[in-house]
Amino acid sequence: MARSRLTPERETELYEAVLDLLREVGYDALTMDAVATRTKSSKATLYRQWGNKPELVARALRHNKPVHFADIDTGSLRGDFYALVERTDDCQMEKDSALMRGLAQAIHGNPDLHKALRELLIEPEMTGLNGLLQRAVDRGELAADTPAMRYLPHMVVGAFVAQQLIEDRSPDRAFLADYIDAVVLPALGV
Amino acid sequence: MARSRLTPERETELYEAVLDLLREVGYDALTMDAVATRTKSSKATLYRQWGNKPELVARALRHNKPVHFADIDTGSLRGDFYALVERTDDCQMEKDSALMRGLAQAIHGNPDLHKALRELLIEPEMTGLNGLLQRAVDRGELAADTPAMRYLPHMVVGAFVAQQLIEDRSPDRAFLADYIDAVVLPALGV
Repeated sequence: MARSRLTPERETELYEAVLDLLREVGYDALTMDAVATRTKSSKATLYRQWGNKPELVARALRHNKPVHFADIDTGSLRGDFYALVERTDDCQMEKDSALMRGLAQAIHGNPDLHKALRELLIEPEMTGLNGLLQRAVDRGELAADTPAMRYLPHMVVGAFVAQQLIEDRSPDRAFLADYIDAVVLPALGV
Repeated sequence: MARSRLTPERETELYEAVLDLLREVGYDALTMDAVATRTKSSKATLYRQWGNKPELVARALRHNKPVHFADIDTGSLRGDFYALVERTDDCQMEKDSALMRGLAQAIHGNPDLHKALRELLIEPEMTGLNGLLQRAVDRGELAADTPAMRYLPHMVVGAFVAQQLIEDRSPDRAFLADYIDAVVLPALGV
Protein backbone atom coordinates (compact mmCIF):
# COMPACT_ATOMS: atom_id res chain seq x y z
CA MET A 1 0.00 0.00 0.00
CA ALA A 2 2.77 2.41 -0.91
CA ARG A 3 0.23 4.79 -2.43
CA SER A 4 -1.41 5.47 0.92
CA ARG A 5 1.68 7.33 2.13
CA LEU A 6 0.68 10.47 0.24
CA THR A 7 -2.29 12.58 1.21
CA PRO A 8 -4.81 13.25 -1.57
CA GLU A 9 -3.78 16.93 -1.51
CA ARG A 10 -0.14 16.05 -1.99
CA GLU A 11 -1.03 13.60 -4.75
CA THR A 12 -3.01 16.32 -6.58
CA GLU A 13 -0.06 18.68 -6.21
CA LEU A 14 2.30 16.12 -7.71
CA TYR A 15 -0.02 15.35 -10.63
CA GLU A 16 -0.43 19.04 -11.41
CA ALA A 17 3.32 19.53 -11.43
CA VAL A 18 3.67 16.60 -13.85
CA LEU A 19 1.10 18.12 -16.23
CA ASP A 20 2.72 21.55 -16.02
CA LEU A 21 6.06 20.00 -16.94
CA LEU A 22 4.46 18.02 -19.76
CA ARG A 23 3.06 21.22 -21.26
CA GLU A 24 6.36 23.04 -20.80
CA VAL A 25 8.88 20.51 -22.10
CA GLY A 26 6.92 17.61 -23.62
CA TYR A 27 6.97 13.94 -22.74
CA ASP A 28 10.38 13.03 -24.09
CA ALA A 29 12.17 15.78 -22.19
CA LEU A 30 10.23 15.17 -18.97
CA THR A 31 12.43 13.44 -16.40
CA MET A 32 11.72 11.97 -12.99
CA ASP A 33 14.51 14.27 -11.77
CA ALA A 34 12.62 17.33 -12.96
CA VAL A 35 9.41 16.11 -11.29
CA ALA A 36 11.32 15.49 -8.05
CA THR A 37 12.90 18.95 -8.12
CA ARG A 38 9.66 20.74 -9.02
CA THR A 39 7.67 18.98 -6.32
CA LYS A 40 10.44 18.91 -3.72
CA SER A 41 10.14 15.16 -3.36
CA SER A 42 12.71 12.40 -3.65
CA LYS A 43 13.05 10.33 -6.79
CA ALA A 44 12.80 7.24 -4.59
CA THR A 45 9.32 8.35 -3.50
CA LEU A 46 8.23 8.88 -7.11
CA TYR A 47 9.47 5.46 -8.22
CA ARG A 48 7.96 3.77 -5.17
CA GLN A 49 4.58 5.39 -5.81
CA TRP A 50 4.39 5.09 -9.61
CA GLY A 51 7.02 2.66 -10.75
CA ASN A 52 7.95 4.56 -13.89
CA LYS A 53 7.42 7.67 -15.96
CA PRO A 54 4.68 6.33 -18.28
CA GLU A 55 2.55 5.30 -15.31
CA LEU A 56 3.10 8.59 -13.50
CA VAL A 57 2.06 10.53 -16.62
CA ALA A 58 -0.97 8.32 -17.30
CA ARG A 59 -2.17 8.66 -13.68
CA ALA A 60 -1.65 12.42 -13.75
CA LEU A 61 -3.77 12.66 -16.91
CA ARG A 62 -6.47 10.48 -15.45
CA HIS A 63 -6.53 12.52 -12.26
CA ASN A 64 -6.82 15.71 -14.33
CA LYS A 65 -9.84 14.52 -16.31
CA PRO A 66 -12.71 16.80 -15.26
CA VAL A 67 -15.44 14.29 -16.00
CA HIS A 68 -15.67 10.55 -16.55
CA PHE A 69 -18.22 8.82 -18.75
CA ALA A 70 -19.01 6.40 -15.94
CA ASP A 71 -20.28 9.26 -13.72
CA ILE A 72 -22.93 10.46 -16.17
CA ASP A 73 -26.49 9.13 -16.17
CA THR A 74 -29.16 11.76 -16.87
CA GLY A 75 -31.80 9.44 -18.30
CA SER A 76 -31.41 10.33 -21.99
CA LEU A 77 -28.57 9.99 -24.47
CA ARG A 78 -28.70 13.64 -25.53
CA GLY A 79 -28.81 14.64 -21.86
CA ASP A 80 -25.76 12.51 -21.11
CA PHE A 81 -23.75 14.04 -23.96
CA TYR A 82 -24.78 17.56 -22.95
CA ALA A 83 -23.85 16.84 -19.32
CA LEU A 84 -20.37 15.85 -20.47
CA VAL A 85 -19.99 19.14 -22.31
CA GLU A 86 -21.36 21.22 -19.43
CA ARG A 87 -18.98 19.72 -16.91
CA THR A 88 -15.88 20.78 -18.80
CA ASP A 89 -14.79 24.38 -19.05
CA ASP A 90 -13.46 26.18 -22.09
CA CYS A 91 -10.17 27.18 -20.57
CA GLN A 92 -9.50 23.61 -19.44
CA MET A 93 -10.28 22.36 -22.96
CA GLU A 94 -7.66 24.66 -24.41
CA LYS A 95 -5.02 23.40 -21.99
CA ASP A 96 -6.05 19.80 -22.65
CA SER A 97 -5.87 20.22 -26.42
CA ALA A 98 -2.25 21.29 -26.12
CA LEU A 99 -1.47 18.32 -23.90
CA MET A 100 -3.18 15.90 -26.27
CA ARG A 101 -1.26 17.11 -29.30
CA GLY A 102 2.04 16.54 -27.54
CA LEU A 103 0.96 13.11 -26.34
CA ALA A 104 -0.37 11.96 -29.73
CA GLN A 105 3.13 12.59 -31.01
CA ALA A 106 4.89 11.03 -28.00
CA ILE A 107 3.03 7.71 -27.90
CA HIS A 108 4.54 6.69 -31.25
CA GLY A 109 8.07 6.62 -30.00
CA ASN A 110 7.06 5.30 -26.57
CA PRO A 111 5.13 2.01 -26.53
CA ASP A 112 5.30 1.99 -22.70
CA LEU A 113 3.45 5.30 -22.58
CA HIS A 114 0.84 4.04 -25.03
CA LYS A 115 0.35 0.91 -22.92
CA ALA A 116 -0.03 2.92 -19.69
CA LEU A 117 -2.48 5.31 -21.33
CA ARG A 118 -4.52 2.43 -22.71
CA GLU A 119 -4.72 0.67 -19.35
CA LEU A 120 -5.24 3.67 -17.10
CA LEU A 121 -7.14 6.11 -19.29
CA ILE A 122 -8.45 4.87 -22.64
CA GLU A 123 -9.87 1.51 -21.59
CA PRO A 124 -11.66 2.70 -18.43
CA GLU A 125 -13.23 5.56 -20.43
CA MET A 126 -14.26 3.19 -23.23
CA THR A 127 -15.92 0.98 -20.62
CA GLY A 128 -17.74 4.01 -19.19
CA LEU A 129 -18.81 5.09 -22.66
CA ASN A 130 -20.09 1.62 -23.51
CA GLY A 131 -22.13 1.64 -20.30
CA LEU A 132 -23.66 4.99 -21.25
CA LEU A 133 -24.56 3.65 -24.72
CA GLN A 134 -25.92 0.39 -23.30
CA ARG A 135 -28.31 2.34 -21.04
CA ALA A 136 -29.58 4.18 -24.13
CA VAL A 137 -30.13 0.80 -25.84
CA ASP A 138 -31.95 -0.49 -22.74
CA ARG A 139 -34.21 2.58 -22.72
CA GLY A 140 -35.04 1.92 -26.39
CA GLU A 141 -33.45 5.18 -27.56
CA LEU A 142 -30.70 3.54 -29.58
CA ALA A 143 -30.81 0.41 -31.77
CA ALA A 144 -28.43 -2.23 -30.38
CA ASP A 145 -26.86 -2.82 -33.82
CA THR A 146 -26.21 0.86 -34.69
CA PRO A 147 -22.93 0.75 -36.66
CA ALA A 148 -21.85 4.26 -35.57
CA MET A 149 -21.70 3.16 -31.91
CA ARG A 150 -18.22 1.71 -32.26
CA TYR A 151 -16.98 4.92 -33.87
CA LEU A 152 -18.11 7.33 -31.19
CA PRO A 153 -14.52 7.93 -29.97
CA HIS A 154 -13.49 8.72 -33.55
CA MET A 155 -16.22 11.35 -33.86
CA VAL A 156 -15.25 12.94 -30.56
CA VAL A 157 -11.50 12.94 -31.24
CA GLY A 158 -12.22 14.42 -34.68
CA ALA A 159 -14.17 17.27 -33.14
CA PHE A 160 -11.20 18.18 -30.97
CA VAL A 161 -8.38 17.76 -33.46
CA ALA A 162 -10.01 19.15 -36.60
CA GLN A 163 -11.36 22.24 -34.93
CA GLN A 164 -7.78 23.11 -34.06
CA LEU A 165 -6.37 22.17 -37.45
CA ILE A 166 -8.97 23.87 -39.62
CA GLU A 167 -10.27 26.70 -37.51
CA ASP A 168 -7.07 27.25 -35.55
CA ARG A 169 -8.86 27.32 -32.22
CA SER A 170 -9.66 24.91 -29.43
CA PRO A 171 -13.16 23.50 -29.25
CA ASP A 172 -15.43 25.23 -26.74
CA ARG A 173 -18.71 24.18 -25.19
CA ALA A 174 -20.87 25.92 -27.82
CA PHE A 175 -19.03 24.14 -30.61
CA LEU A 176 -19.24 20.74 -28.92
CA ALA A 177 -22.98 21.10 -28.23
CA ASP A 178 -23.58 21.95 -31.91
CA TYR A 179 -21.39 19.04 -33.04
CA ILE A 180 -23.39 16.62 -30.88
CA ASP A 181 -26.64 17.71 -32.51
CA ALA A 182 -25.25 17.98 -36.04
CA VAL A 183 -23.06 14.87 -36.18
CA VAL A 184 -23.12 12.51 -33.21
CA LEU A 185 -26.85 12.07 -32.64
CA PRO A 186 -27.75 11.85 -36.39
CA ALA A 187 -24.95 9.30 -36.97
CA LEU A 188 -26.37 7.25 -34.09
CA GLY A 189 -29.86 7.58 -35.58
CA VAL A 190 -31.16 9.31 -32.42
CA MET B 1 8.23 32.65 -63.77
CA ALA B 2 11.05 31.27 -61.66
CA ARG B 3 9.15 28.04 -61.21
CA SER B 4 9.41 27.09 -64.90
CA ARG B 5 13.16 26.52 -64.56
CA LEU B 6 12.66 23.09 -63.02
CA THR B 7 11.38 20.10 -64.97
CA PRO B 8 8.34 18.36 -63.44
CA GLU B 9 10.54 15.31 -62.73
CA ARG B 10 13.03 17.42 -60.85
CA GLU B 11 10.25 19.13 -58.94
CA THR B 12 8.83 15.76 -57.89
CA GLU B 13 12.29 14.65 -56.79
CA LEU B 14 12.68 17.77 -54.65
CA TYR B 15 9.26 17.43 -53.06
CA GLU B 16 9.91 13.78 -52.20
CA ALA B 17 13.20 14.69 -50.55
CA VAL B 18 11.42 17.34 -48.48
CA LEU B 19 8.83 14.82 -47.28
CA ASP B 20 11.50 12.24 -46.48
CA LEU B 21 13.32 14.82 -44.38
CA LEU B 22 10.09 15.85 -42.68
CA ARG B 23 9.45 12.23 -41.65
CA GLU B 24 13.03 11.80 -40.51
CA VAL B 25 13.68 14.95 -38.50
CA GLY B 26 10.34 16.78 -38.19
CA TYR B 27 9.45 20.30 -39.30
CA ASP B 28 11.40 22.27 -36.74
CA ALA B 29 14.69 20.51 -37.45
CA LEU B 30 14.20 20.63 -41.22
CA THR B 31 16.50 23.25 -42.77
CA MET B 32 16.82 24.61 -46.29
CA ASP B 33 20.48 23.59 -46.01
CA ALA B 34 19.51 19.96 -45.46
CA VAL B 35 17.10 20.07 -48.43
CA ALA B 36 19.84 21.59 -50.61
CA THR B 37 22.35 18.92 -49.59
CA ARG B 38 19.93 16.03 -49.98
CA THR B 39 18.79 17.17 -53.41
CA LYS B 40 22.18 18.45 -54.62
CA SER B 41 20.70 21.84 -55.38
CA SER B 42 21.73 25.33 -54.28
CA LYS B 43 19.94 27.12 -51.49
CA ALA B 44 19.52 30.07 -53.86
CA THR B 45 17.48 27.87 -56.19
CA LEU B 46 15.28 26.69 -53.34
CA TYR B 47 14.59 30.22 -52.11
CA ARG B 48 13.99 31.48 -55.67
CA GLN B 49 11.51 28.70 -56.35
CA TRP B 50 9.65 28.60 -53.04
CA GLY B 51 10.47 31.73 -51.08
CA ASN B 52 10.62 30.05 -47.70
CA LYS B 53 10.42 26.81 -45.78
CA PRO B 54 6.68 26.89 -44.96
CA GLU B 55 5.77 27.31 -48.64
CA LEU B 56 8.18 24.60 -49.75
CA VAL B 57 6.71 22.18 -47.20
CA ALA B 58 3.10 23.07 -48.05
CA ARG B 59 3.75 22.61 -51.80
CA ALA B 60 5.51 19.30 -51.19
CA LEU B 61 2.52 18.07 -49.20
CA ARG B 62 0.09 19.22 -51.85
CA HIS B 63 2.12 17.54 -54.60
CA ASN B 64 2.17 14.34 -52.56
CA LYS B 65 -1.60 14.17 -52.16
CA PRO B 66 -2.74 11.11 -54.13
CA VAL B 67 -6.23 12.39 -54.83
CA HIS B 68 -8.02 15.74 -54.73
CA PHE B 69 -11.69 16.24 -53.94
CA ALA B 70 -12.06 18.42 -57.02
CA ASP B 71 -11.16 15.47 -59.31
CA ILE B 72 -13.95 13.21 -58.08
CA ASP B 73 -17.40 13.13 -59.69
CA THR B 74 -18.94 9.67 -59.92
CA GLY B 75 -22.60 10.73 -59.92
CA SER B 76 -23.48 9.75 -56.34
CA LEU B 77 -22.26 10.89 -52.96
CA ARG B 78 -21.48 7.38 -51.74
CA GLY B 79 -19.69 6.71 -55.04
CA ASP B 80 -17.62 9.87 -54.61
CA PHE B 81 -16.57 8.95 -51.07
CA TYR B 82 -15.72 5.39 -52.12
CA ALA B 83 -13.70 6.70 -55.07
CA LEU B 84 -11.64 8.79 -52.67
CA VAL B 85 -10.90 5.72 -50.57
CA GLU B 86 -10.08 3.54 -53.57
CA ARG B 87 -7.60 5.99 -54.99
CA THR B 88 -5.41 5.96 -51.90
CA ASP B 89 -3.30 3.00 -50.94
CA ASP B 90 -2.80 1.54 -47.47
CA CYS B 91 0.95 1.98 -47.38
CA GLN B 92 0.67 5.61 -48.40
CA MET B 93 -1.91 6.20 -45.66
CA GLU B 94 0.51 4.90 -43.07
CA LYS B 95 3.25 7.23 -44.25
CA ASP B 96 0.79 10.13 -44.36
CA SER B 97 -0.47 9.49 -40.84
CA ALA B 98 3.08 9.83 -39.52
CA LEU B 99 3.55 13.08 -41.44
CA MET B 100 0.25 14.49 -40.19
CA ARG B 101 1.06 13.79 -36.56
CA GLY B 102 4.31 15.68 -36.84
CA LEU B 103 2.64 18.58 -38.64
CA ALA B 104 -0.29 18.87 -36.22
CA GLN B 105 2.33 19.48 -33.57
CA ALA B 106 4.47 21.81 -35.70
CA ILE B 107 1.76 24.21 -36.83
CA HIS B 108 1.22 25.42 -33.27
CA GLY B 109 4.67 26.87 -32.92
CA ASN B 110 4.80 28.03 -36.54
CA PRO B 111 2.02 30.38 -37.68
CA ASP B 112 3.76 30.77 -41.08
CA LEU B 113 3.48 27.06 -41.67
CA HIS B 114 -0.18 27.07 -40.67
CA LYS B 115 -0.84 29.96 -43.05
CA ALA B 116 0.94 28.23 -45.96
CA LEU B 117 -0.92 24.98 -45.30
CA ARG B 118 -4.24 26.81 -45.15
CA GLU B 119 -3.66 28.63 -48.43
CA LEU B 120 -2.06 25.85 -50.42
CA LEU B 121 -3.66 22.71 -49.04
CA ILE B 122 -6.58 23.11 -46.65
CA GLU B 123 -8.57 25.80 -48.47
CA PRO B 124 -8.31 24.30 -51.99
CA GLU B 125 -9.41 20.93 -50.59
CA MET B 126 -12.29 22.52 -48.67
CA THR B 127 -13.42 24.18 -51.92
CA GLY B 128 -13.22 20.82 -53.72
CA LEU B 129 -15.16 19.16 -50.93
CA ASN B 130 -17.85 21.82 -50.98
CA GLY B 131 -18.23 21.33 -54.74
CA LEU B 132 -18.66 17.59 -54.23
CA LEU B 133 -21.35 18.22 -51.58
CA GLN B 134 -23.08 20.86 -53.71
CA ARG B 135 -23.43 18.38 -56.58
CA ALA B 136 -25.09 15.94 -54.15
CA VAL B 137 -27.49 18.74 -53.12
CA ASP B 138 -28.19 19.51 -56.80
CA ARG B 139 -28.94 15.84 -57.50
CA GLY B 140 -31.39 15.86 -54.58
CA GLU B 141 -29.37 13.32 -52.58
CA LEU B 142 -28.54 15.68 -49.73
CA ALA B 143 -30.68 18.36 -48.07
CA ALA B 144 -29.07 21.78 -48.55
CA ASP B 145 -29.41 22.60 -44.84
CA THR B 146 -27.91 19.36 -43.46
CA PRO B 147 -26.03 20.51 -40.33
CA ALA B 148 -23.39 17.73 -40.58
CA MET B 149 -22.14 19.09 -43.92
CA ARG B 150 -19.91 21.66 -42.27
CA TYR B 151 -18.38 19.03 -40.04
CA LEU B 152 -17.33 16.59 -42.74
CA PRO B 153 -13.62 17.46 -42.28
CA HIS B 154 -13.96 16.81 -38.55
CA MET B 155 -15.42 13.36 -39.18
CA VAL B 156 -12.65 12.50 -41.64
CA VAL B 157 -9.81 13.81 -39.47
CA GLY B 158 -11.30 11.89 -36.52
CA ALA B 159 -11.24 8.66 -38.49
CA PHE B 160 -7.54 9.08 -39.15
CA VAL B 161 -6.38 10.27 -35.76
CA ALA B 162 -8.54 8.14 -33.47
CA GLN B 163 -7.82 4.90 -35.29
CA GLN B 164 -4.18 5.48 -34.54
CA LEU B 165 -4.75 6.58 -30.96
CA ILE B 166 -7.21 3.89 -29.92
CA GLU B 167 -6.40 0.94 -32.13
CA ASP B 168 -2.71 1.75 -32.52
CA ARG B 169 -2.80 1.31 -36.28
CA SER B 170 -3.16 3.51 -39.34
CA PRO B 171 -6.52 3.56 -41.08
CA ASP B 172 -6.74 1.36 -44.16
CA ARG B 173 -9.20 1.27 -47.03
CA ALA B 174 -11.45 -1.35 -45.42
CA PHE B 175 -11.74 0.73 -42.25
CA LEU B 176 -12.47 3.95 -44.14
CA ALA B 177 -15.16 2.31 -46.29
CA ASP B 178 -16.84 1.01 -43.15
CA TYR B 179 -16.57 4.40 -41.45
CA ILE B 180 -18.22 6.09 -44.45
CA ASP B 181 -21.21 3.74 -44.23
CA ALA B 182 -21.42 3.73 -40.43
CA VAL B 183 -20.81 7.40 -39.64
CA VAL B 184 -20.46 9.81 -42.54
CA LEU B 185 -23.50 8.91 -44.65
CA PRO B 186 -25.88 8.48 -41.66
CA ALA B 187 -24.73 11.82 -40.17
CA LEU B 188 -25.47 13.45 -43.53
CA GLY B 189 -28.87 11.75 -43.63
CA VAL B 190 -27.99 9.90 -46.87
